[in-house]
Amino acid sequence: MPDAAALPPIRIDLGSDTSTRPSPGMRAAMASAPVGDEQMGEDPTTCALEARVAALLGQEQAMFLPSGTMCNQIALLVHCRPGDEIIAAHQAHIYGSEGAGAAALAGAFVRPIEAPEGIFDGAAVRSALRPLRARAPRSRVVVVEQTANRGGGAVWPLAAVADVADRAHEHGLAVHMDGARLLNAVVASGIAAQSFGRLCDSVWLDLTKGLGCPVGAVLAGPRDFITAAWTWKHRLGGAMRQSGILAAAGLYALDHNIERLAHDHAQARRLADLVVQIPGVTLRFPKVETNIVFIDLADTGCAAPAVLHALRAEGIRLSVEGPHLLRAVTHLDIGAADIAPTADALSAAVRRLSSAD
Amino acid sequence: MPDAAALPPIRIDLGSDTSTRPSPGMRAAMASAPVGDEQMGEDPTTCALEARVAALLGQEQAMFLPSGTMCNQIALLVHCRPGDEIIAAHQAHIYGSEGAGAAALAGAFVRPIEAPEGIFDGAAVRSALRPLRARAPRSRVVVVEQTANRGGGAVWPLAAVADVADRAHEHGLAVHMDGARLLNAVVASGIAAQSFGRLCDSVWLDLTKGLGCPVGAVLAGPRDFITAAWTWKHRLGGAMRQSGILAAAGLYALDHNIERLAHDHAQARRLADLVVQIPGVTLRFPKVETNIVFIDLADTGCAAPAVLHALRAEGIRLSVEGPHLLRAVTHLDIGAADIAPTADALSAAVRRLSSAD
Amino acid sequence: MPDAAALPPIRIDLGSDTSTRPSPGMRAAMASAPVGDEQMGEDPTTCALEARVAALLGQEQAMFLPSGTMCNQIALLVHCRPGDEIIAAHQAHIYGSEGAGAAALAGAFVRPIEAPEGIFDGAAVRSALRPLRARAPRSRVVVVEQTANRGGGAVWPLAAVADVADRAHEHGLAVHMDGARLLNAVVASGIAAQSFGRLCDSVWLDLTKGLGCPVGAVLAGPRDFITAAWTWKHRLGGAMRQSGILAAAGLYALDHNIERLAHDHAQARRLADLVVQIPGVTLRFPKVETNIVFIDLADTGCAAPAVLHALRAEGIRLSVEGPHLLRAVTHLDIGAADIAPTADALSAAVRRLSSAD
Amino acid sequence: MPDAAALPPIRIDLGSDTSTRPSPGMRAAMASAPVGDEQMGEDPTTCALEARVAALLGQEQAMFLPSGTMCNQIALLVHCRPGDEIIAAHQAHIYGSEGAGAAALAGAFVRPIEAPEGIFDGAAVRSALRPLRARAPRSRVVVVEQTANRGGGAVWPLAAVADVADRAHEHGLAVHMDGARLLNAVVASGIAAQSFGRLCDSVWLDLTKGLGCPVGAVLAGPRDFITAAWTWKHRLGGAMRQSGILAAAGLYALDHNIERLAHDHAQARRLADLVVQIPGVTLRFPKVETNIVFIDLADTGCAAPAVLHALRAEGIRLSVEGPHLLRAVTHLDIGAADIAPTADALSAAVRRLSSAD
Repeated sequence: MPDAAALPPIRIDLGSDTSTRPSPGMRAAMASAPVGDEQMGEDPTTCALEARVAALLGQEQAMFLPSGTMCNQIALLVHCRPGDEIIAAHQAHIYGSEGAGAAALAGAFVRPIEAPEGIFDGAAVRSALRPLRARAPRSRVVVVEQTANRGGGAVWPLAAVADVADRAHEHGLAVHMDGARLLNAVVASGIAAQSFGRLCDSVWLDLTKGLGCPVGAVLAGPRDFITAAWTWKHRLGGAMRQSGILAAAGLYALDHNIERLAHDHAQARRLADLVVQIPGVTLRFPKVETNIVFIDLADTGCAAPAVLHALRAEGIRLSVEGPHLLRAVTHLDIGAADIAPTADALSAAVRRLSSAD
Repeated sequence: MPDAAALPPIRIDLGSDTSTRPSPGMRAAMASAPVGDEQMGEDPTTCALEARVAALLGQEQAMFLPSGTMCNQIALLVHCRPGDEIIAAHQAHIYGSEGAGAAALAGAFVRPIEAPEGIFDGAAVRSALRPLRARAPRSRVVVVEQTANRGGGAVWPLAAVADVADRAHEHGLAVHMDGARLLNAVVASGIAAQSFGRLCDSVWLDLTKGLGCPVGAVLAGPRDFITAAWTWKHRLGGAMRQSGILAAAGLYALDHNIERLAHDHAQARRLADLVVQIPGVTLRFPKVETNIVFIDLADTGCAAPAVLHALRAEGIRLSVEGPHLLRAVTHLDIGAADIAPTADALSAAVRRLSSAD
Repeated sequence: MPDAAALPPIRIDLGSDTSTRPSPGMRAAMASAPVGDEQMGEDPTTCALEARVAALLGQEQAMFLPSGTMCNQIALLVHCRPGDEIIAAHQAHIYGSEGAGAAALAGAFVRPIEAPEGIFDGAAVRSALRPLRARAPRSRVVVVEQTANRGGGAVWPLAAVADVADRAHEHGLAVHMDGARLLNAVVASGIAAQSFGRLCDSVWLDLTKGLGCPVGAVLAGPRDFITAAWTWKHRLGGAMRQSGILAAAGLYALDHNIERLAHDHAQARRLADLVVQIPGVTLRFPKVETNIVFIDLADTGCAAPAVLHALRAEGIRLSVEGPHLLRAVTHLDIGAADIAPTADALSAAVRRLSSAD
Repeated sequence: MPDAAALPPIRIDLGSDTSTRPSPGMRAAMASAPVGDEQMGEDPTTCALEARVAALLGQEQAMFLPSGTMCNQIALLVHCRPGDEIIAAHQAHIYGSEGAGAAALAGAFVRPIEAPEGIFDGAAVRSALRPLRARAPRSRVVVVEQTANRGGGAVWPLAAVADVADRAHEHGLAVHMDGARLLNAVVASGIAAQSFGRLCDSVWLDLTKGLGCPVGAVLAGPRDFITAAWTWKHRLGGAMRQSGILAAAGLYALDHNIERLAHDHAQARRLADLVVQIPGVTLRFPKVETNIVFIDLADTGCAAPAVLHALRAEGIRLSVEGPHLLRAVTHLDIGAADIAPTADALSAAVRRLSSAD
């Protein structure tokens, strides 16, 4: 393993789209934002962001929160009682990447659906329902992750969301959309955010990924849902004070950083096209509809951590997602000029490491 | 649906082995049991049962509880902290039939392993482990259900338990055995209960199923485990008083009702052999190693509830386990003379209902 | 401390009324009880007990459970959501003697009311209410413990229960009666159990204390409450099978052991009258309305544990409730002839131990 | 009640010290802060703030969080297991103002100590300890709120903290300091923050109150504590991304806004001295050691909400803390010129409203 102290600075960071840094324009917007105490409803910038996101997502109200994970946890806390069960794709963020919070906080199980790209249909929901018995968990909510991160950034088609929502509502379940990359789906599909959002009982979007903000996410839903969500916002410690500083970045991003997501998708596509030309390298999810590329090294014989380290030594960062699986995520701070060098470095690393065996 | 009031009494109850009624000998043992306050350790009969089961299961100590579900829940509460994850077969009792108690009480997820007969190996455990990250659930305990009820009463081979336990312990996970029908496995396999039990960090056996007692189960483990379990026994309301009345039935059953489980297995085998001769009827789990027969009606076109009701009208009870799936369970109150009439009634019901379409 | 091995058998056990052993008549009733699977509603004896207790307590339905602690915990789980608050006397059983189960299981705080005898009024409830704010706990249920054990077995007057209930209901709180010794209150006050029970949203009575049964308690409430309670009965592992064996004892006790509670109260009164004649010995709660006597040794200079051990060496058991506080509880297995010897032994022990200083 | 739309802007906001708005210098520091992903330990500003606060509080490590409530909740989650009990003053923030989060999240009770100014001693801790029994809650942590907000901003003397800590540690309990206004105590007492912090097992300080930052608090403790706290930070959704924007405000505040707290204390003292000259107005907590003044109107006959509204109509905000109780809190945005007009307006309002009766 390379010596961390000796590593060069990261010049191309494809590790995650959470690594974006606020631009000068965004910093200026934050620095000049009018603010007040959000807990008294007196932060004008936070209120403006909440109103704007509620409208964008086709919901009555919205609530600013410090993270997308808190959006998920609060939504599940409001929808569920202890002993309930959540239906989600097996690779969903709420199942594997939130510290089993849905069990620890809401007292709920997840019942995972096997779905290669993280997308399933109403029939799968029906199969996952528990019988209505006093001894069974109560099936209570379906989670749709848009886009499906560990499904290669796949976009849930509107018809699939509608099918899932119909089936869920027919059986008395709520539908929650984990919109960590919802706007990537909107830009990739050309479908309005509110068309997705209106089908859901709760939905959020993240400000820190493709939108490039430093902190925050916004959870939206009906008025009663948001009222109940405020109780949990206080209880979890997500109630802040002059959060308008952060909300200002969100407003700026909604004005400036949505359409440019198409650029991120194009760069991911370019990267995908280049890496499959490397002998033995394949794509785990060949579609690459948005900004995520899963690079499968199994046929090269190279271990993902070894390749990761080789790239890191060149100032390029990816993330490891399995013994032979790497992930690259494009974003605001990745330019067109970063793609070919990344593919070249990957090619060299694979060649060197596979011949080393 | 037949009118409940008009139904004949149940003469052959294959609905579950939980339906057994205490025999005259067992009732006499209960009526004459010396008792005291179990919470002060002063019930001699309860203490005797606990000592005997601890020895039988190869553990230091044991604790009498009102049900097997409480044995599972307390064991998981002792092994887990909120945010942990339990690895179990997808059809495990703790996942589908305990009201999501592991989430509601212990704050833990279940990560289900797809295993047709409910039996898996150490490699499957390894695949189900979460990475060691602050954001991931902490993989903490593996549950082995012996026998696997919704795997057709399949017996976990000793080698499979050992393989799972080795892998679990290697990664710092505990192994818990849900021994609802452990003694059926012992009788079917000829392997001593303590050979299974010694591999586990906690293990219990049920008194109310094949053993024929009215109430209770006994959870065993190391001294520290039982000490911690007592805290939860009090908290959940499982601490009783003169429980020796119930424990006396358990002691009686250990003396009289273990070896006769072979008879139950033989009857289940006979029933299985008869029902597969009915056109279109198959066995979901053809092995039938113990006392459970899953009868698949899919090829007959008959709906399971309809067949259930037809049999019930003849005084025969089975249980529905799916749209076309019935379950028959043999036990103490099922005699050799009950098998052929059951198969005959099933045959007649299927013939009548399939021609009715 | 005396050597446990050398201690004589306990001949007068005033440690708790939970120590009663079933009488021959009760044992016979248990031995001959018709039984079935209670989880299917097929145990006729359990069903009969539940119907009888529901009527006795003025409620629609009832549910047999293995302990009074489980009655409390399930009632609180049904009434509360996580983040709620329970108002109770500071010395209430649910606050100090159930392992903080109301927090661990229901996620609720207790807000204790200082009440010397464990009895408070509607004004105290009003003072304990939290303001209606998103950040405050939600005041949700008031618990009335009848009789108040650590208030010296004091009886809640009907008017006090009504006052508390009126105030609670006015503010949307439920009222739960912990009826561990409700029938002692009924016998002592001459007020029907249903007069108390009808004022409450849930109420239970214990079978194992004054009633002399080995195991069990019965929780009653409206139909919807009991339906919801069944979910928790399964989840906690309180669902049993042929519980009619235990329920038969309950039916027997309701027929034979209620009126005789007056005898227990008389013996407690006699004991109280005798012990106050011992120099330095006082009563913590002089009223002694039911079967509990708190003996205060502070003015004797004797430590409670030392006196306890001295009495135990004579075959007499009391319990320690504080550095200088002992408790004596009369019950079915305490005869009139046991009282004077107890007072005599206490007198001798106090004399010996105080002169030893 | 006055028409909200017709109300003048607030010119003197004594409602809470959480209402401070970031100064130009603080905004500039935020706008130019170097940032990175805090979850990868790559935000240099957040790391710098954490290191600085750890040193300031005499602890090994620290963790930036979005609020003080989350600091409290995470500390209690790390210290406690479900079924534990927390000892705190009856008016503590964790008991009444965090949505019963300690029960809902950590599964713990609070056992309140009656302490008029929110300050108690080791003997009170000893009295609040539960006996070591399987049925009792496990006494686990003592919370010291420095300063005691609803004790009138009283300062815990170092000796009192030491006494409590000694007694707590002797019995195996942890000590947690809720340092919402710890630096007010430091400035008022002249005792270093680390002198208080070193006595505790976990301690935090708030950036949003006297320090004038828009968002955030910093929790400190031993290395193992912070490691465990990170798991909960992720689970609750408190893990952010480029939080250096917020941390920069914290660093700025530590440089510029500590010593000036003495000014806030002087203004509170001046206000207190003026209001007691109003006939019938008294101080609930006459000491006024820091920046909080509780104004008792009971003897004026005026209702607190009515006086609140009268002042609000003049552009002055206080908060209601009881039927006849108002609170005024001084802070960064309150100048010396704001005090006399506030006292004058209060005087006029009380005169008008009491004569109106």
